[in-house]
Amino acid sequence: MAEKQEKRTATETHLEQVVELLHRHELVENLVSRQENTRNGLVESLVHRQHLTELQQLLDRLHPADIAYILEALPLEQRLVVWDLVKAGRDGEILLETSDAVRETLIAHMDEDELVAATGQLDTDEIADLAPDLPREVILDVFKALSTEDREQLRAAMSYPEEAVGALMDFEMIEIREDVTLEVVLRYLRRLDQLPDHTDQLFVVDREERLQGLLPVNRLLVSDPDTLVADVMTRDYTSFMPEQDAHEAASAFERYDLVSAPVIDAEGCLVGRMTVNAVVDYIRESKDTETLAAGGLSEDEDLFASVWKSVRNRWAWLAVNLVTAFIASRVIGIFEHSISQLVALAALMPIIAGIGGNSGNQTTTMIVRALALGQITRDNAQKLFFKEISVSALNGLIWGSIVGLFAFLIYHSWQLGLVMTGAMALNLLLAAIMGVVIPLVMEKFDRDPAIGSSVMITAITDSGGFFIFLGLATIFLV
Amino acid sequence: MAEKQEKRTATETHLEQVVELLHRHELVENLVSRQENTRNGLVESLVHRQHLTELQQLLDRLHPADIAYILEALPLEQRLVVWDLVKAGRDGEILLETSDAVRETLIAHMDEDELVAATGQLDTDEIADLAPDLPREVILDVFKALSTEDREQLRAAMSYPEEAVGALMDFEMIEIREDVTLEVVLRYLRRLDQLPDHTDQLFVVDREERLQGLLPVNRLLVSDPDTLVADVMTRDYTSFMPEQDAHEAASAFERYDLVSAPVIDAEGCLVGRMTVNAVVDYIRESKDTETLAAGGLSEDEDLFASVWKSVRNRWAWLAVNLVTAFIASRVIGIFEHSISQLVALAALMPIIAGIGGNSGNQTTTMIVRALALGQITRDNAQKLFFKEISVSALNGLIWGSIVGLFAFLIYHSWQLGLVMTGAMALNLLLAAIMGVVIPLVMEKFDRDPAIGSSVMITAITDSGGFFIFLGLATIFLV
Repeated sequence: MAEKQEKRTATETHLEQVVELLHRHELVENLVSRQENTRNGLVESLVHRQHLTELQQLLDRLHPADIAYILEALPLEQRLVVWDLVKAGRDGEILLETSDAVRETLIAHMDEDELVAATGQLDTDEIADLAPDLPREVILDVFKALSTEDREQLRAAMSYPEEAVGALMDFEMIEIREDVTLEVVLRYLRRLDQLPDHTDQLFVVDREERLQGLLPVNRLLVSDPDTLVADVMTRDYTSFMPEQDAHEAASAFERYDLVSAPVIDAEGCLVGRMTVNAVVDYIRESKDTETLAAGGLSEDEDLFASVWKSVRNRWAWLAVNLVTAFIASRVIGIFEHSISQLVALAALMPIIAGIGGNSGNQTTTMIVRALALGQITRDNAQKLFFKEISVSALNGLIWGSIVGLFAFLIYHSWQLGLVMTGAMALNLLLAAIMGVVIPLVMEKFDRDPAIGSSVMITAITDSGGFFIFLGLATIFLV
Repeated sequence: MAEKQEKRTATETHLEQVVELLHRHELVENLVSRQENTRNGLVESLVHRQHLTELQQLLDRLHPADIAYILEALPLEQRLVVWDLVKAGRDGEILLETSDAVRETLIAHMDEDELVAATGQLDTDEIADLAPDLPREVILDVFKALSTEDREQLRAAMSYPEEAVGALMDFEMIEIREDVTLEVVLRYLRRLDQLPDHTDQLFVVDREERLQGLLPVNRLLVSDPDTLVADVMTRDYTSFMPEQDAHEAASAFERYDLVSAPVIDAEGCLVGRMTVNAVVDYIRESKDTETLAAGGLSEDEDLFASVWKSVRNRWAWLAVNLVTAFIASRVIGIFEHSISQLVALAALMPIIAGIGGNSGNQTTTMIVRALALGQITRDNAQKLFFKEISVSALNGLIWGSIVGLFAFLIYHSWQLGLVMTGAMALNLLLAAIMGVVIPLVMEKFDRDPAIGSSVMITAITDSGGFFIFLGLATIFLV
């Protein structure tokens, strides 16, 4: 928030400055439009232009990622004013850094030539990232302008699904041969203007492009220049296949603290490389997707999306929720006679359902996490299952007694208290069983258990909780 | 799962192998204990030992992070068998890679000497990471064995809160002077056995340790060796202060694709460096904490924690939930008379509460995310607020009509349908307002809005939903 001066980062300060300049610009614009025909018009329009120049100078100094950040935080109208001021030469890089939702609004504002120019500046792996959001004609134009090798790379990069290593890799590898000395390598590097970002190692390949080993730059620096590459290169390295799940590659980067890693095909030929920055982006995005899904959003939503677009984005989960709520409602409907006999049941039943849902989600969260880490084997699944059952049994005893006591204190009926306790224990048991089973079954059927498990478990503990509590009450109380 | 051969990673295969060997070992152990006094005893015990040797050989080949992973996935008893087989020289590194919960179980199994030996092998920043989990005597022993400089570093690293840059930095910087040539730098580096991990740049400091600039290794490699460091070093770099929030540093690493960055104090002196691997771990852990909190778990839970420990870990959120459920129950209690007059209300009320909670969580998820990215300014907060109100009004119209129709179809009362529609619209409005306000207020009071917002919004839409629906029904229907 604006008033927390001390906690603002540099980028947040830039955002404030941009907003400030936009405001001054808007104020002047309003004046101008009102006084268009007065003799002040010219002066005002100069001041107006001055604000925009100042804004442009500020933007020119910023990193593309910072401009992307500012664009994300601005309402559509202001966003487009800023976007128009961004130097044409940088718009490709900035588009790469924005979220899909915001990128869409920016691309919709550009004509075909601008898009071709923006995309043309990028590396092939970056073009592949933008491609799904670009009009088909733009992609064709860009494709035509590429060299044969680049076309090959673009085609390769676009052929992999979003979740594959192939979609995250780039092609900026420095390749060397194993039969030369480090001195030769050093001279070769010195002939280059600069090395690609994240070059922490050079790739040693043979004439058929088959990967023979890796030469870490740090080893190149500390070794005697007369040594052969073959004598200092490392043959023990982590590599990935382009078809491999990006999730696995990300885990390996995290586990082995990698900066870059080779991507090789089935013949052992080097086809690309993964770098840690792509991995960081991937980790952040996949965690984001989970958070959004857990919050009931289908996809990334532009903060300033139109109302209609937002409604559509939230549609799916609300509909699912509505269906489960209707089912729960009909379960209660079955017991309307019992409720009319003993209206306290209506007041108490949400407690059973609520705690059951909470407890089931706790179990599911544990299991989903262990599944994501690949820590669940056939051997320990059973142990886990019994652990969760025991936890829920103990919880049932404790929380069951508390809610039973609560019911007794309010309604002065020990029978009602006992039914509460029993229903609570049974619903927690149901929650534990389903909390383990649902994610395991989803995993079995190749669905992401992180998405949807929570809705399902809540649906079951709601309807189940109502059924158990009202059922027990009907048998023992009514 | 075991049967999905094609999807298993190398590490998951290692886990399976370890489990397999442990099983064979256990089988033999059972035989031995049953046949202790027979003449087969010796043979069995040899076979027994053979399995353990095989297991040890497998473990020796694995990366410390992989061993940590396997330890996490094993039930306590098996975990300790494996832990005993791990070479003493590597246990420090492995402890660093485990989760806090599992680390605790391993440390509890080690005596003081083992802990001192394990910790003694580590760098000072790593010792600082382990320190909170170690007995006080162990830390004192380790501290005594350190050099004066290392003691200084350890004291510095331990003085920062877990969420500060200072707690994540390490001290493995290579420092050079600006008035030497690159040739001199190259010769200096060649005298070292190896460079620290993630050395993508050298730190240029003056005699007072004040940071003057950075020399990227890649620039060192492509530049003429006769150039002065001062002429090629970059003076435009991102640096952090040790007190700074790690969250900000992580955003900068992500945004600017950094591999390492200097940490400087208020006088501009170099005190440490941040590396991307620390950032990746930090991002993963903070996302994990959010996921756990969203699932109702207080902290990281060992997959095979004792039942009692698990119950305690889940206690807090269940208790919070129980309180909110009791409140909701009492809200319903107020209207018991109305419900006894019209029992359909009991069946319909969870629909209003449920959809309200879902919709409120959608809004909150958006706002929490924008807050985490620092994208909410005083200027756009109002715009966001009105957008969310509009979305909820539109949703209220759509979903309100559907639930109204549902109520009409089931209970054949258009009055009941109208009350449903009205209650739905009002509760969605409440959800939208609270969905924006709660995270903003939490942020204002320096609480993490990602943790707890969801529980609060659900509590309000539950109790509020019941109150609105039953209140309207009491006024218009009863």
